[in-house]
Amino acid sequence: MCEASEAVLSPSPFLNSVPESCIDAHRKRPLRIALFGFGTVGASVARILIESQPEGLELTHIFNRSVARKRVDWVPSNVVWSDDAEAVLAADVDVVVELVGGLEPAGGWIRSALGTGKSVVTANKKLISFAGIELEQLALSHGGHLKFGAAVAGGVPVIPGLEQGLSGDRIDRIEGILNGTCNFILSRMQEGGEYATALASAQSKGYAEADPTEDVGGFDARAKLAILMRLAMRAAVDPEEIKPQAITSIAAVDFSYARELGCTIRQIARAERAEGSVATAVGPMLVDLHSPLAWSRGTENMVVLSGHYGGDVVFSGHGAGGQPTAVAVVSDLLALAHGSRRVLVPSTPTTVGAEFEAPHYIRFMVDDKPGIIADVTVALASEQINIRAIVQKPGYPQHALPFVVTVEPCKSSALKRALERLRGKDYLLEMPLDLQILE
Amino acid sequence: MCEASEAVLSPSPFLNSVPESCIDAHRKRPLRIALFGFGTVGASVARILIESQPEGLELTHIFNRSVARKRVDWVPSNVVWSDDAEAVLAADVDVVVELVGGLEPAGGWIRSALGTGKSVVTANKKLISFAGIELEQLALSHGGHLKFGAAVAGGVPVIPGLEQGLSGDRIDRIEGILNGTCNFILSRMQEGGEYATALASAQSKGYAEADPTEDVGGFDARAKLAILMRLAMRAAVDPEEIKPQAITSIAAVDFSYARELGCTIRQIARAERAEGSVATAVGPMLVDLHSPLAWSRGTENMVVLSGHYGGDVVFSGHGAGGQPTAVAVVSDLLALAHGSRRVLVPSTPTTVGAEFEAPHYIRFMVDDKPGIIADVTVALASEQINIRAIVQKPGYPQHALPFVVTVEPCKSSALKRALERLRGKDYLLEMPLDLQILE
Repeated sequence: MCEASEAVLSPSPFLNSVPESCIDAHRKRPLRIALFGFGTVGASVARILIESQPEGLELTHIFNRSVARKRVDWVPSNVVWSDDAEAVLAADVDVVVELVGGLEPAGGWIRSALGTGKSVVTANKKLISFAGIELEQLALSHGGHLKFGAAVAGGVPVIPGLEQGLSGDRIDRIEGILNGTCNFILSRMQEGGEYATALASAQSKGYAEADPTEDVGGFDARAKLAILMRLAMRAAVDPEEIKPQAITSIAAVDFSYARELGCTIRQIARAERAEGSVATAVGPMLVDLHSPLAWSRGTENMVVLSGHYGGDVVFSGHGAGGQPTAVAVVSDLLALAHGSRRVLVPSTPTTVGAEFEAPHYIRFMVDDKPGIIADVTVALASEQINIRAIVQKPGYPQHALPFVVTVEPCKSSALKRALERLRGKDYLLEMPLDLQILE
Repeated sequence: MCEASEAVLSPSPFLNSVPESCIDAHRKRPLRIALFGFGTVGASVARILIESQPEGLELTHIFNRSVARKRVDWVPSNVVWSDDAEAVLAADVDVVVELVGGLEPAGGWIRSALGTGKSVVTANKKLISFAGIELEQLALSHGGHLKFGAAVAGGVPVIPGLEQGLSGDRIDRIEGILNGTCNFILSRMQEGGEYATALASAQSKGYAEADPTEDVGGFDARAKLAILMRLAMRAAVDPEEIKPQAITSIAAVDFSYARELGCTIRQIARAERAEGSVATAVGPMLVDLHSPLAWSRGTENMVVLSGHYGGDVVFSGHGAGGQPTAVAVVSDLLALAHGSRRVLVPSTPTTVGAEFEAPHYIRFMVDDKPGIIADVTVALASEQINIRAIVQKPGYPQHALPFVVTVEPCKSSALKRALERLRGKDYLLEMPLDLQILE
């Protein structure tokens, strides 16, 4: 007798008086699973289900557009392949695994499944960030379940870890590397090289799309941050209120200056409670070379959750790729099969009103001439911003000279106003690049 | 209407046909909680329950020996204080939180609670490592639940993360820093200083007991490793088959030599599948200064789980202390209140038969004279062990000269046999210290 089958028998603590016959009703058959999307992740999910044969799970349907070209011989012949989404949704399945992504048509499929009492497992961060609460309520009202452990940090169990292991704390701060593509590009640039080269390398390895905007623009990371904010900080925010900064303006020279300051550059997503509101930021930031966030290499993800009672907890690992993401999906399926409900905590609608008080790195690119530093210091002083250091590395031509000013903690909006005062100056080859320094 | 109360309403996927009346039966009242043990962790659990008022949880009883001296005024007056364990176990409570530790009497209380259909939340790693399966089965057969998220790595959600988020993978390897006391002592020694000084410092801060054997001897870490092996690798082992090496023989000179080799020293607990069995080790080991395990400072814990599909996942944070551990306990209680069952996977009784093939660090302490290196090389050659390097730092007296030999991967048993050949040599001031090098 194995523990798993006993676990399925065991009632919840709320169900002590439920007659055994009630509980026994469904355990005779495994969960029947329809897989929507047979790309890298979908094929990995199928592979694990077929190789590992986890008890209580049975793959019964695979949906994909033009499904004929997707068919593989290692999937058992009793699995139904289909390119008719409606037919699969109407079939006798218990769980729909949605791995197509995007708001539609994925959202319609998920609503249809939940609306008929099926459960849904998805890795769709965009949909969950915009419609997670609505979909959870739809699931609850029809007796199904919605799980999305793969939506944030892929194979790193941040969502199950925080729902099941940190719900007893009050999380006040989130800092994370949530986008493997950006981390690959920036850690490649850290070794030397310009953005375009690093992006091309990411694309050739399949880590970046032909149009990389969703990743490098910060939209993917902000969706994940919004999900974490709701689950960890219990702050339900409109993802569009989080304004991401793209990593596209980072140049090799910035890594050189960052190193001078004992730092490197990573795409960071962060949120923190402040004054009854929350401050958020997504974009490239300087991180101390000794901080955990600087340890992440390649496509790794990392999340630091800071609790009022428990202090910092760090999760890291492979955030993307077919197999790690598939592990999260199959784990969600196993949790469903074991009757392990999510720990759903109430969240509060929250506006992103507050701003971080952070030190900043400002990199200028100028056609050098006298008076520039005077202009800069006057502009910063106009907003009461204190300069921490002015750094100028040798070896650059005078007509395209990069130099860096770091400033003491200030609000981004104040710094932006100060830098606006320099707009149009003839020595500025481009508007200054302004990055938060994470301390 | 908040999400939490709706969650309690929602049936498990296995219970679609259960009449609503069955499910509704118990949700009218919160879980009534009896706290056994009002020490640092127990008081922190009470504090969180009273400060945060998590929905669905009600502290009703506190048991402690000589309870009068424990009474505090911030606990509401309707909570019953008692030093009569039997009376509290017989009272109208749903969950017993056991924070006393040790095999008995804690084990008796837990069996009594589970045997009457109550649920139990415990941080008792020793009891769970020896009797976890028996207690889980007792819980299942009486309709209760056993949760022990706090038993490994305290406030770091390794157990919930792996049960809920990595069950879909096949974990082949575990490496962890599982004992905060040892990590504090060794990271303090890394900064300079001998073992005795570092231990005294740990004791003065309350991180180490007056008799520190359980921690420094490796018994605490091995209990946690055994728990992780069962949950992550599905290998049920007798903890006593894991032979720990104490950290007491590490001296300042070893940190000096470790640094020479690009390493530091940490108490590591590790397990790996090998040849149908498992290899395990608990003790001080050399770890690369660039590896995640070397990043842990002070009392931090860190666990690296290596999955066949998902690769390495790292968890770290505060493994001990009242508040982090209390977060894990309260999170377990919330999961119970939300009807979130554990994902219990079957484990296989496994003997600890295999050995690691690891490189080793061997530190000799000799009264120097000609021929020592010749003896050592002959002894190692007798077991086919290849020398990687011989390192001798200047500045030590000839009559008490430390030097280090590192060897290519070999089995500990072979190395032990080789070193036995040197026993009794008049130049040996003590038997050589042999540490695994983690690669």
